Amino acid sequence: MLFEPVPVLDHGFIRVVDYMGDDEAIVQAARVSYGRGSKRRRRDRGLIRYLMRHWHTTPFEMCEIKLHVKLPIFVARQWIRHRTASVNEYSARYSVLDHEFYVPERDRLQAQSTLNSQGSGDVLNDDEAQRVLDLLTTDAGQAYEHYEEMLNLDAEGATLDSDRQGLARELARMNLSLNFYTQWYWKIDLFNLLHFVWLRADPHAQYEIRAYADVLLDVIRRWVPLTYDAFMDYRMNAASISGPGLAVLRRMLNGEAVDQESSGLAPAEWRELMKLLNSES
Amino acid sequence: MLFEPVPVLDHGFIRVVDYMGDDEAIVQAARVSYGRGSKRRRRDRGLIRYLMRHWHTTPFEMCEIKLHVKLPIFVARQWIRHRTASVNEYSARYSVLDHEFYVPERDRLQAQSTLNSQGSGDVLNDDEAQRVLDLLTTDAGQAYEHYEEMLNLDAEGATLDSDRQGLARELARMNLSLNFYTQWYWKIDLFNLLHFVWLRADPHAQYEIRAYADVLLDVIRRWVPLTYDAFMDYRMNAASISGPGLAVLRRMLNGEAVDQESSGLAPAEWRELMKLLNSES
Amino acid sequence: MLFEPVPVLDHGFIRVVDYMGDDEAIVQAARVSYGRGSKRRRRDRGLIRYLMRHWHTTPFEMCEIKLHVKLPIFVARQWIRHRTASVNEYSARYSVLDHEFYVPERDRLQAQSTLNSQGSGDVLNDDEAQRVLDLLTTDAGQAYEHYEEMLNLDAEGATLDSDRQGLARELARMNLSLNFYTQWYWKIDLFNLLHFVWLRADPHAQYEIRAYADVLLDVIRRWVPLTYDAFMDYRMNAASISGPGLAVLRRMLNGEAVDQESSGLAPAEWRELMKLLNSES
Amino acid sequence: MLFEPVPVLDHGFIRVVDYMGDDEAIVQAARVSYGRGSKRRRRDRGLIRYLMRHWHTTPFEMCEIKLHVKLPIFVARQWIRHRTASVNEYSARYSVLDHEFYVPERDRLQAQSTLNSQGSGDVLNDDEAQRVLDLLTTDAGQAYEHYEEMLNLDAEGATLDSDRQGLARELARMNLSLNFYTQWYWKIDLFNLLHFVWLRADPHAQYEIRAYADVLLDVIRRWVPLTYDAFMDYRMNAASISGPGLAVLRRMLNGEAVDQESSGLAPAEWRELMKLLNSES
Repeated sequence: MLFEPVPVLDHGFIRVVDYMGDDEAIVQAARVSYGRGSKRRRRDRGLIRYLMRHWHTTPFEMCEIKLHVKLPIFVARQWIRHRTASVNEYSARYSVLDHEFYVPERDRLQAQSTLNSQGSGDVLNDDEAQRVLDLLTTDAGQAYEHYEEMLNLDAEGATLDSDRQGLARELARMNLSLNFYTQWYWKIDLFNLLHFVWLRADPHAQYEIRAYADVLLDVIRRWVPLTYDAFMDYRMNAASISGPGLAVLRRMLNGEAVDQESSGLAPAEWRELMKLLNSES
Repeated sequence: MLFEPVPVLDHGFIRVVDYMGDDEAIVQAARVSYGRGSKRRRRDRGLIRYLMRHWHTTPFEMCEIKLHVKLPIFVARQWIRHRTASVNEYSARYSVLDHEFYVPERDRLQAQSTLNSQGSGDVLNDDEAQRVLDLLTTDAGQAYEHYEEMLNLDAEGATLDSDRQGLARELARMNLSLNFYTQWYWKIDLFNLLHFVWLRADPHAQYEIRAYADVLLDVIRRWVPLTYDAFMDYRMNAASISGPGLAVLRRMLNGEAVDQESSGLAPAEWRELMKLLNSES
Repeated sequence: MLFEPVPVLDHGFIRVVDYMGDDEAIVQAARVSYGRGSKRRRRDRGLIRYLMRHWHTTPFEMCEIKLHVKLPIFVARQWIRHRTASVNEYSARYSVLDHEFYVPERDRLQAQSTLNSQGSGDVLNDDEAQRVLDLLTTDAGQAYEHYEEMLNLDAEGATLDSDRQGLARELARMNLSLNFYTQWYWKIDLFNLLHFVWLRADPHAQYEIRAYADVLLDVIRRWVPLTYDAFMDYRMNAASISGPGLAVLRRMLNGEAVDQESSGLAPAEWRELMKLLNSES
Repeated sequence: MLFEPVPVLDHGFIRVVDYMGDDEAIVQAARVSYGRGSKRRRRDRGLIRYLMRHWHTTPFEMCEIKLHVKLPIFVARQWIRHRTASVNEYSARYSVLDHEFYVPERDRLQAQSTLNSQGSGDVLNDDEAQRVLDLLTTDAGQAYEHYEEMLNLDAEGATLDSDRQGLARELARMNLSLNFYTQWYWKIDLFNLLHFVWLRADPHAQYEIRAYADVLLDVIRRWVPLTYDAFMDYRMNAASISGPGLAVLRRMLNGEAVDQESSGLAPAEWRELMKLLNSES
């Protein structure tokens, strides 16, 4: 599993650099708490599922992973909002950024929703999509060309014009757009990694960060398979139902016909509950 | 709400020292994210409920509270496990601890459960309870008497015997038992306070820390009433139902009779789900 | 001090939104630790200086401040690396970013150093500077124009062309360059604010973030003047001297002539020590 | 280095359970920041010393270690104040604590200082020391005896009296004193471990936690020898000299005779500076 970069988007990747601990380490840490008083030895799988179901966190913190990630800057800006991790990012103060920028695939060019403030799910029509791709490609290309000119460097990193000084890298970078790629080492414990994935593999997350979260999900599956199964059942595929929602549910299970008005739920919450109860059925 | 210490247990209290922000500050912070793009202005209550329901966290971090708490050391040891807070504790290295220790009320003396490793809910019979109260009171009293003797101090803090040196406070304190009271300033943001209360006002938490969590819940109710309501509905009285649990629920709502075997759930999880669906009914 | 935005760079600002605590709150928290055992009551100023000199941290955590900051994205990317704060950023997923980007003043256009990897301190000559300003201005202007075109919005936020759909905001933003302005609410405790300023008001920090750190320093001076004085003496204007460096110092104070070779220090460290001992003299 | 418990105090130990990364991983992470722009490849040792000297933190966060520690509860209470670590503690809610408590060695029984609030450094005279040892041993022994009686368990964990219920473990533990041993798994990154050791191996730390910090220092020496050397030179044996202190130093190096009054320093700070400059000489 180590060292193999898994491609993400057009130029990105995730590569596992190192890790510490596994399912067994979680079980071992959890059993510290029970000590000699633990009469009934649960089996590993059952214990991990119990821990996940009852929101125990510290045993999952006992595993750690270090990743090398290449990602567009606008994705990095969302990613870094998760504070419980260690990061060493490639520095554009000291180094020259590569000539690599993200351009979405045509079928990922969602229109703006008119209902809410997110992407609508509808893909742009062909003409409009082509125009967007042209603009993104041309502007990023030109930004990079001017970046190199300001640095007084050619594509191989050699001085362009020996009579010029070249602008400091820390300043020239400001001309690059948010779809340029950066890279970093990112180290995080398993508990916080699961939380990251739970937020970022969610359908409401932007597609581009979801693409990374999906790869992370697969890393977790291969690294800690028992934890992965429990995580899928008790987090990713689980739902939180509010107190008033549970009351509605109990009435329905008792055979009562309930509609939004008689439910006491606000329309949006009623819709969300109905969607949850009817999905897959 | 400020400055009034609210009594907890036999000698403890919680006192609000200062706070910053309120429901309005949460709304204000959330609206930063929507900026001029926010067409539909939600009203405050609806917005706070939306934020809570969809697990937004940062707007709730915009409120902060500082508390002065007096609590038994064994409760303090559980409390301090929450890392996202600032603490200034009364130091028994530098100061002499007060002659105050916790003794449970008789009807709180639970027996050990034989089924699991927690308190059973059954209260000790009278004779056994009296013996426990006697032991706790006598041992703590003697521990404190010897603490003072080692310090060479009398109850007023005056030197007992001018020919003796007196042991360092940082050492003498080790003779005190875990039911002695300590105190601290504890500062935390609202998001993390809610999380603390969610964990510690839970029926599985030990009664003694729950007593503090219940007071905190009331502080929250008076401080940020809209947030309190949303928190009660979407956290305290809510339940997380697993993916397999949701599948069972959908079958039941479709009129299918499901039992544990046909559910595919493990016995413990089946019991928990049934308890949830039948409670209050 | 509240509500007044202090301008920073060409379009940025820092505005204090709220705060909790002051010098007195630090003293109060520190005294909790000393309790009745504290015989000698230090005066506030002396106590705060003592706390700062001996690296006490928790009393300074008892103060909290909330700021509204407008800053270029490349500055925001450095700023966010400080993890011990709460942030609500204006979201370009939901909202349209303003037409405001940073262009350095001409005398801030440093050349790249040939010695190390940072800015050199030398300012670009006039022709090269003019070219850089032209490129930055033109590219950002064009990026924004195309951003609006992709969004299908005009400068007033009205639909440009009713036959087009408009790209989702979360995608269109990737065309903007790193000098565009963003804004956020940023809430942090005083201890971590001091640490932030110590790192970012340092001469090695990039000029643009230093400009913000300098304003923060002034906010601190007005908010907690005793802490500010102690911070200047014991952090900002202090220096850490290594064990081997201290040995050199002792030899020099004994009248011995020491040079780099006889010092046992590496050349770079020797230079740094000499620079420190000779500055201002 | 793994698995071997290193004894600390009378019944405690530190045992390395697992670790991730080494000196090489720090170098690798630091070089990410410099990328292809790094002309001059520093050698590992020099780079690590540079990072330490200039307070770089994130490369040191790339290493992680997990320890199993057995320690008295009053030491655990100081230890847990460091928030940037993951902990799984043996739970006295679920398990029965062992019959093991700490009693200091006779030559560690310091008297209380009359000057400040800490231990004085003077050891108690023989009679007083013997009395302290008797009290500590007798009280802890009795506390444990009553703990077992309340639990209705004998020394082998068998039921004492089949007619009694036995108090819940979570309650009975409150009778134990702070010198009883607990144990935990403690996982932390190298940067935060160094900070912990810097604070707790300090002469002002209480002897009992210093005993653990000294073992940790040796673990660091064997784990990351280059980092250990840099840490000793630039942290453990280094000193921070204030701005006014540096000014005094410069005057002295210029041959000027400076005393406390002419220094402008407060008496306490002057004493600390003189002690620093004269130690070892």
